[in-house]
Amino acid sequence: MIKGHGDDTYQYSRPMVANFSSNIYSHADLQGLHDFLKGRLEVIGNYPAPDASQLEKVLANELHIEADEVLVTNGATQAIYLIAQAFAGSKSAVFQPTFSEYADACRMHGHIVKSLFLLPSAREDWLLPEDVRMLWLCNPNNPTGQVVPLEELRLLLEHNSQVLFVIDQSYEDFTLKYLLTEREALERGNVLLLHSMTKRFAVPGLRIGYVTGDAALLHRLRTHQMPWAVNALALEAGKWLLQQGALCVPASLTAYLKETARLRDRLMALGALEVWDTDTHFMLVRLRMGKASALKEWLMCEKGILIRDASNFEGLGDSYFRIATQDPAENELLVESIAEWLTI
Amino acid sequence: MIKGHGDDTYQYSRPMVANFSSNIYSHADLQGLHDFLKGRLEVIGNYPAPDASQLEKVLANELHIEADEVLVTNGATQAIYLIAQAFAGSKSAVFQPTFSEYADACRMHGHIVKSLFLLPSAREDWLLPEDVRMLWLCNPNNPTGQVVPLEELRLLLEHNSQVLFVIDQSYEDFTLKYLLTEREALERGNVLLLHSMTKRFAVPGLRIGYVTGDAALLHRLRTHQMPWAVNALALEAGKWLLQQGALCVPASLTAYLKETARLRDRLMALGALEVWDTDTHFMLVRLRMGKASALKEWLMCEKGILIRDASNFEGLGDSYFRIATQDPAENELLVESIAEWLTI
Repeated sequence: MIKGHGDDTYQYSRPMVANFSSNIYSHADLQGLHDFLKGRLEVIGNYPAPDASQLEKVLANELHIEADEVLVTNGATQAIYLIAQAFAGSKSAVFQPTFSEYADACRMHGHIVKSLFLLPSAREDWLLPEDVRMLWLCNPNNPTGQVVPLEELRLLLEHNSQVLFVIDQSYEDFTLKYLLTEREALERGNVLLLHSMTKRFAVPGLRIGYVTGDAALLHRLRTHQMPWAVNALALEAGKWLLQQGALCVPASLTAYLKETARLRDRLMALGALEVWDTDTHFMLVRLRMGKASALKEWLMCEKGILIRDASNFEGLGDSYFRIATQDPAENELLVESIAEWLTI
Repeated sequence: MIKGHGDDTYQYSRPMVANFSSNIYSHADLQGLHDFLKGRLEVIGNYPAPDASQLEKVLANELHIEADEVLVTNGATQAIYLIAQAFAGSKSAVFQPTFSEYADACRMHGHIVKSLFLLPSAREDWLLPEDVRMLWLCNPNNPTGQVVPLEELRLLLEHNSQVLFVIDQSYEDFTLKYLLTEREALERGNVLLLHSMTKRFAVPGLRIGYVTGDAALLHRLRTHQMPWAVNALALEAGKWLLQQGALCVPASLTAYLKETARLRDRLMALGALEVWDTDTHFMLVRLRMGKASALKEWLMCEKGILIRDASNFEGLGDSYFRIATQDPAENELLVESIAEWLTI
């Protein structure tokens, strides 16, 4: 899907006051990265390494795995398309509602795609439908913000050892819940984990993601990767960001999630909204009356506030929107603006 | 093919003195672009437009065509893979020797690939083998530097109107020979032209290419494009570079091609080399004795000079290498260094 994602600032000429529309914290301090890149601009004059192998080594070192167990991609989105391509024609199941690119990539590459709408914990047993060969899962999930409890995820893996699991952990740095580690995924052998440096370091313009998993699985992906897929500045930035240590935005995750809970409470107190419980920094909201698209237009045009109309997520209707927590003053502005919209 | 291309500087720790290995002029003055990018680094904090439409509009305006007749890609290489994917399972012919990615991309996407080794002008007639559905042609051709005369190319197009032609004009700004214009390609309706901002502006680290052609053909490619394929800094740089006017490196193409002819004469005067006639700024060379890989290693280790071992181009042997003209002093250093190697 090209149009219909969040952070669609390119559609609006009005100056933006606050951006809740992508799952990115808008106030990351990127000055250090800017300064670093200013001194490294000469890299645009040469081809990047065709296979991003230097950055893969840095990542492997950080994760205590081998370099052939990491594949760097042009954003996590390219990883999704590469996996769908490498297993073209497979039978994939996708837990919905979720990020649209899994089903899009699978359909593009001839998969038969089955949507599953019940989370495993609500199922009678842990067995996936027997014709399913691949299972796509976003954890924490976009747009619901929910994490599958680790014990349930392990049961799902154990009962379906013939299935290849693609688990998108793009939001792994924004939850306190337990997730599958790279090591455990590797040892299981049938799990590919997707990771997003975009999300971790709040640099969506650079396009850097990576996959970790069994070296033989990654080898299969590598045979479908084109040369020079990742821009030289993205590779430089990626190496530098990792070498700064455990930098992650915002500085305190606990405080950020506490502010998320406060924002959720404030929204629920308005009475006219249903707000999903979330394990991360964004949340799914349903208007009891009215359309999310109308709210989105009003907020942007009247207040310069951008939210994500979530009506195009499979299984959701036109009353759904998604927001990512920003700074307290902005969050208050959002709550007050929605309150104002509800009265008109 | 991931490994085996030119500009493989990442393989060497020795400081490089001169780089003849990619078809890029190494001395482009990119200071203006650096200064511009230093002031635009904030774009890394937002998603790029998912479809690069702004840059497509700027290109369409420059080329006097419509925006839906331009598709921006993550380097021309992504355009190659996208075309092969959009026409998966086709029967493709590739004029060899040429850039390896055409055949690689076609094989990855299930094409039957036929290599044609005779240029059209040497063929008895202009008809391509009747089972061919797509024809891939690099013009000027990498690695030979040759341009198919425009009248011959038109005959080839006219005799094979049922064939989709993919003509890679990545080196279009580095020849004085007539090439197909975007307008003529559009009017024919069965031609996709590939273009490389990488080559034109000497910015291979950024990854910006584009395709021009019939809007319906490009629509088919767009349905296979993933969102956010092109990095935000690459998009910014692309727009800025085009807005500077007809900037192309080096400043004088006539002088650059004259220096290319001088370098070619100097190499031929060594006696031990066959040097192909070229219509552009790079040339294919064959050692009458010895291996190109040995020459490459010696030049890099002893002199810090990087050339392109061309033995992995289909149809070429281990005695072939390719060089792109650089500054006169560097070109002299190359000639003298090869002369020295020939005596040892």
